[in-house]
Amino acid sequence: MTKFFEAIKFPKLRTALVSIDSALNRVLAEKIIAEQDVPGFNRSAVDGFAVNATETIGATQFQPKIFQLTPRNRASSGKARQIWTGNPLPAGTDAVVMLEDTKRVRDRVDVWNQVTPGQNVSKKGEDIQKGTTAVEAGTRLKPQHLGFISALGVGNVKVFEKPRVAVLNTGNELKRLGEELEENQIFDTNSHVLRALCSELGAEPIDLGLARDDANEISEKLKVGLRKADAVMTSGGTSVGGLDLVPDAVNDIGNPGVIIHGIAMRPGMPTALAAVEGKPILILPGNPVAAMVAFEVFARPLICRLLGMKQVEPRPAVQAKMTRGIATALGRRNFVRVRIFKRDEQLLAEPVSAKGSSMISTMTRANGYVIVPENREGLEEKESVIAQLFDTVEG
Amino acid sequence: MTKFFEAIKFPKLRTALVSIDSALNRVLAEKIIAEQDVPGFNRSAVDGFAVNATETIGATQFQPKIFQLTPRNRASSGKARQIWTGNPLPAGTDAVVMLEDTKRVRDRVDVWNQVTPGQNVSKKGEDIQKGTTAVEAGTRLKPQHLGFISALGVGNVKVFEKPRVAVLNTGNELKRLGEELEENQIFDTNSHVLRALCSELGAEPIDLGLARDDANEISEKLKVGLRKADAVMTSGGTSVGGLDLVPDAVNDIGNPGVIIHGIAMRPGMPTALAAVEGKPILILPGNPVAAMVAFEVFARPLICRLLGMKQVEPRPAVQAKMTRGIATALGRRNFVRVRIFKRDEQLLAEPVSAKGSSMISTMTRANGYVIVPENREGLEEKESVIAQLFDTVEG
Repeated sequence: MTKFFEAIKFPKLRTALVSIDSALNRVLAEKIIAEQDVPGFNRSAVDGFAVNATETIGATQFQPKIFQLTPRNRASSGKARQIWTGNPLPAGTDAVVMLEDTKRVRDRVDVWNQVTPGQNVSKKGEDIQKGTTAVEAGTRLKPQHLGFISALGVGNVKVFEKPRVAVLNTGNELKRLGEELEENQIFDTNSHVLRALCSELGAEPIDLGLARDDANEISEKLKVGLRKADAVMTSGGTSVGGLDLVPDAVNDIGNPGVIIHGIAMRPGMPTALAAVEGKPILILPGNPVAAMVAFEVFARPLICRLLGMKQVEPRPAVQAKMTRGIATALGRRNFVRVRIFKRDEQLLAEPVSAKGSSMISTMTRANGYVIVPENREGLEEKESVIAQLFDTVEG
Repeated sequence: MTKFFEAIKFPKLRTALVSIDSALNRVLAEKIIAEQDVPGFNRSAVDGFAVNATETIGATQFQPKIFQLTPRNRASSGKARQIWTGNPLPAGTDAVVMLEDTKRVRDRVDVWNQVTPGQNVSKKGEDIQKGTTAVEAGTRLKPQHLGFISALGVGNVKVFEKPRVAVLNTGNELKRLGEELEENQIFDTNSHVLRALCSELGAEPIDLGLARDDANEISEKLKVGLRKADAVMTSGGTSVGGLDLVPDAVNDIGNPGVIIHGIAMRPGMPTALAAVEGKPILILPGNPVAAMVAFEVFARPLICRLLGMKQVEPRPAVQAKMTRGIATALGRRNFVRVRIFKRDEQLLAEPVSAKGSSMISTMTRANGYVIVPENREGLEEKESVIAQLFDTVEG
């Protein structure tokens, strides 16, 4: 992976200024610094009565302190003002007595509990002080970030442009949706899956369509991809020991070409990582499950980098107990698909068995995967594992 | 919640036919049934040599069985054909010997390991059989579902239309982004946060802007919302014991009006649930953190229902150990914001302390929340808790 990343000339990422209302899930390109204190004034954190705290000393339910209510923005000695959460504190007050600690009788209020100066008050600058960083560059903007940014009065933010990833699927046996299948043909699934995975991460997929198992056709489409996109991703036409049409085509069109071919993982072994004139090309297997796993392992870190994130965005991960044991291949990193579910408040991981790792249906029955390292021959029943989730957990 | 849901006349949800390339994260409106077997033919699950399995009986590395290679789509006795993953099995063969169990010498191959009929073969219909359900209605479509659907040759799917949710923020102290703040004013954050939360779930937010603390203005904007949207959401203008401008305005415009007002939760106590002529109105607190928590508890189930999902979509949840104890209010359900992080392979939950629950910055420092039930007075140090995640976990 390091060697692969070294062969890539990561460009200075393009940025765009967008309204915070269209910035959800975009990656922030420059840190947001508070240009003012938030809140900008002392305000009440509760519903109640603003008072001068020293005048409440000794107040109890049996010996309440009595205040006259004032409607004014200034409270002199012996005066209190009714106030709601978020209201500014009137001059002359420094604390708020909560409603439930008072009894109001017409224009008078009995205070049953003493308060200390600053009690139930959100101080000026308590949320953030002028000049400090509110949100760091490289942050993926969630609703809470957009809320915080709007509280600072910032309406437009500089985000990184979505990286463009061109996706090509290869194979004589493939037909596009809408076409008629002939004997021994199948529908293209990988280009849909890979483009959806790109979109899900926040990249912009470019559809290069299909190429037949023909070196020239593959080369031509790869060149289009390299011209239009920041990265190219293919599937099919790569195996270990078999046909290597795509790696060969990549080597034909430029340098350094294929950097790594054949990864000690399962599924996903025939994956190859390449670069041509500094642009990354990911050569993923044709088997749809292997393609998804290889996307996870190689495309995800690459795209996170192109998105402008400082580290690879992790999937949610949970700890769960295996419902049964499973054998895996020694010497390879195995990605075991599991269905995580809840039973008796415990998370269980059921291996989604599949003789054929090519079965895309296994990916819809699973909602996560467990990595079994190279030096293990499997997982044991009741073993505690960490599963990375790619769908929700029911129950 | 039940009483609230009963007051809503849930409409028959509208549907739309969309290409699978624009169906990511949409909710499927009718189940997808396989119209053909997938795969549609017996195909190899590995790279290797297709053979008649009975002819390999007894093969070992010391006594290999020898086959003549054929390039034809039919292999008679003593013949084998080289084959790649996904290729159809030639007639006359019923198993595939993996490459690593063979040695090819020109037009001959030595087979070192016996195979059983069907070994390393993906059988016709193994992924899914004609007539069975591939994906259930109500499923949120992830990349793997789109892959499975495309494998079936289905290019367009019927999904539920995005529910429209109108969002109104209220309060004299609020200014829109781009406006100048006067003394004691603050920028509207809740309408941005609530609309982003709607978008994140897959609903379509409608911006009703701001209303001053004026019953007429609030009523007029609510009516616009009810006309344009499937649900209306407000923030501010609701408290417990204080100003109830929004609940009053809702009661003015129609029946049944406010159904529940005041929830034993913290933050979020002043939340009210209402309906007018069968359309839901969620009256959320003005405090931005309380508004987010109340969205989570009430808007999320409502929107999932309007999205056409069969149950509330859960957030990812993880088990973690509290780094320190924290006190909470007895008799209320407390939502404690925490920052979940990994240390020494263990997940820890650090309470994000905040005197003022109104501090939106606490939501950006936190990445999850822990629910402390009504009958508890807090959480203990090292206590194991379940946290619902609203952002990624680092480390």
